[in-house]
This record gives sequence, structure tokens and C-alpha cells, in this order.
Amino acid sequence: MEHTRDKPFTAEIALPGGALSAYDNHTLRRLSAMRGYFADAERYEQMLAASDIGLYEVYELHRPESSGELLHGTSILHPGKVGDEYFMTKGHFHAVLETAEVYYVLQGQGMMVMETPEGDWAVEELCPGRVLYVPPGWAHRSVNTGGEADLITFFVYPGHAGHDYGSIESQGFRKRVVERDGKPRVVDKARWRPQEER
Amino acid sequence: MEHTRDKPFTAEIALPGGALSAYDNHTLRRLSAMRGYFADAERYEQMLAASDIGLYEVYELHRPESSGELLHGTSILHPGKVGDEYFMTKGHFHAVLETAEVYYVLQGQGMMVMETPEGDWAVEELCPGRVLYVPPGWAHRSVNTGGEADLITFFVYPGHAGHDYGSIESQGFRKRVVERDGKPRVVDKARWRPQEER
Repeated sequence: MEHTRDKPFTAEIALPGGALSAYDNHTLRRLSAMRGYFADAERYEQMLAASDIGLYEVYELHRPESSGELLHGTSILHPGKVGDEYFMTKGHFHAVLETAEVYYVLQGQGMMVMETPEGDWAVEELCPGRVLYVPPGWAHRSVNTGGEADLITFFVYPGHAGHDYGSIESQGFRKRVVERDGKPRVVDKARWRPQEER
Repeated sequence: MEHTRDKPFTAEIALPGGALSAYDNHTLRRLSAMRGYFADAERYEQMLAASDIGLYEVYELHRPESSGELLHGTSILHPGKVGDEYFMTKGHFHAVLETAEVYYVLQGQGMMVMETPEGDWAVEELCPGRVLYVPPGWAHRSVNTGGEADLITFFVYPGHAGHDYGSIESQGFRKRVVERDGKPRVVDKARWRPQEER
């Protein structure tokens, strides 16, 4: 019996810009999709009334959702703030919690905010040339602290990982990244409770 | 019961050079380790008698060998030839055949030579900014056709993939990359037989 295998393939990452030349899954996340995510709700509504701008884009290549495959693509997070809080991605756990993700930073300045279901948290700086390993079990959200340039990363995660946005949507991350005196600072989210107490 | 999770971590890729700032697995593959791999055995022995030069290096970060983890690092393949055949890596299948690998090319010019146990083959050009997806089931070997610069790639593959060098060591790839009139050309390996006929 003949075994038909998928052929190898290539794609280019355009810089600056970050678009993947070949992709079959493009997400454009606009401000309107992020209600409730930023601390300053009043400022959020003002900005949204003015323009439903795009906050970030993800270019991805679909692969079968099996553990031998690798989902990969680019993430482009635009610069800006809602009040004093930097633009960020929604952030998520993987649906299969025990799966990792690797990032390689192509352009820009930012932070990855991470936390576990057990209540641990971590923040790592993102800068060009840096590799970040998000071990299994850590929710992750990227934040653009660069002020003017897009934060562009190349990401890879296991084919069977999936996404769980619900836990973050309902409670948020326990840490926020805000601008203080012109510099990024990590601060506590108000009213955050560990998952086990929710 | 407390769940202790590995903390997120970062590493820098130094360019040019390709070394990873944090790694716990460094491979330096010298000419002496590549006996039998190049077609021109006489020229190989002459070169080896002159100097046991390093052909390529791999910097990698160990992770648990489970499907939720991602092994990742950098590969630095130096420029040069043995006779008319460009410097190349040994090449391998993954021990768990049905596992993929993703490459992002950081520097240099080259080719990825790939083949399946069923006898299909493929060659993709490697150039900076390009992403290459090696689907599950494809043996892969990189070749530096750049002449002067190192070929540097960032790679990611599933934690449970493992390596199988034996199949390639015994039979080689069915395609070689050689220089003809100053340009790389893909040619047939002499006496190559599909795996099922061996």
C-alpha cells in the first residue's frame, strides 16, 4: 500500500511587517474584540468610539492536530496603549495544558506575561534575537512595550496543543504591564484570585 | 499537592556566529566523524590528513522527551567542499518517524535535502528569512552552498522525536548536492536503492 506523505514546503517572513508569504489562517484582532481585557474601561470605550483599530495579527499555517506536527507562524502586535496599559494579545492556555511553545523574536520590544493554573507567574523581556521557551502549563500573553515599532515573533507549538482562551477571558492575568514615567512596569491586576479560589 | 513547573527561560542567538547563549547540549561534528558520507573518498582522506576541521555545530537545549515539549536550538554549518560536494550535516530520520521539524533560516545560503522511507525526495533552498517545514516522515540533511558564510538555522522539533542516523549512515540520501560550473546542482547518488529493496 502506498503511503502518501505531505511534501515539505517553505514560506518567507517579510520584515518589517511580519507577514508570512504562505499561510491559510490569518487572525486580525481588533480593539472591539478586546472588551474587558484592559483595566481602563472608560478609555477603552473612548478609543473604540473613535476607531476600531487592529491590535494584532497572526499568520499561521494549518497542520493536522497531532502531536507529531508543529503549528507555526508569525505574530505582529502593534504599538499603543489603552490608558497606561500597553497593547497586548488576549493570551491563552493551551487546551492540552501540558504543551510548550517556543518564540523567536524578530523585531520590536516587549514582554511575555505568563502564569500557571497554580498561581505562579513570570515575565520575560522580548527583544530581537531572543528565544523564549514557554514550558508546558503556562498561559502566555505578549505585550508591546516598544512605543513605535511592531513586536514581531515567530512561534512554534505542538500540533495537538489547541487553545483555551476562556480561563484568561474570565479572570485575566494576575499581572499587567503599564507605562510609568515612560517605562514599562509590571503591576498587580486588581481583584485577581488564584484559579482554585474562583 | 503542589505542582512544580519548569520556569520559562530565554536564550540569545548571536549573529553572525549562531551560538546560543544558553545551551546544555553542544555538538561539534568534525571531518573525521563523516567518513563514508562524501562521494570523493580519496579527497576526503587527503583533507582529513591535513586537518580534522569542524564541519558543523549544534547548540541545543535539553527538554524532557515528551510530546508536549519542544526541542530547539541552532545549527551552524560551515562553508566548504569535499571535492565537488558541499559540506553537509549527517542527516537523519526522527526515531519516531511521524514527527515534523521546523527551520527558520537566520544566515547563509543552502539546501535541505529530504527523503522518505518510501523513496520520495525533495530539495528546498534555504535563505535568510525563510521558514521550512519538514513534515513527519522525511529524513533531512542541510547543505551549505554559500561558499563563504556559515549556514545558520533555528530549529524546533517535538520532544519525543529522537534521532535515527543509522538508515542514512548505511545507505546515504538518494540525492547529493555538488558544485557544477560554480553553481549548486542536485545529482543522483550512485548505487542508491529504495529502503524496501535493501
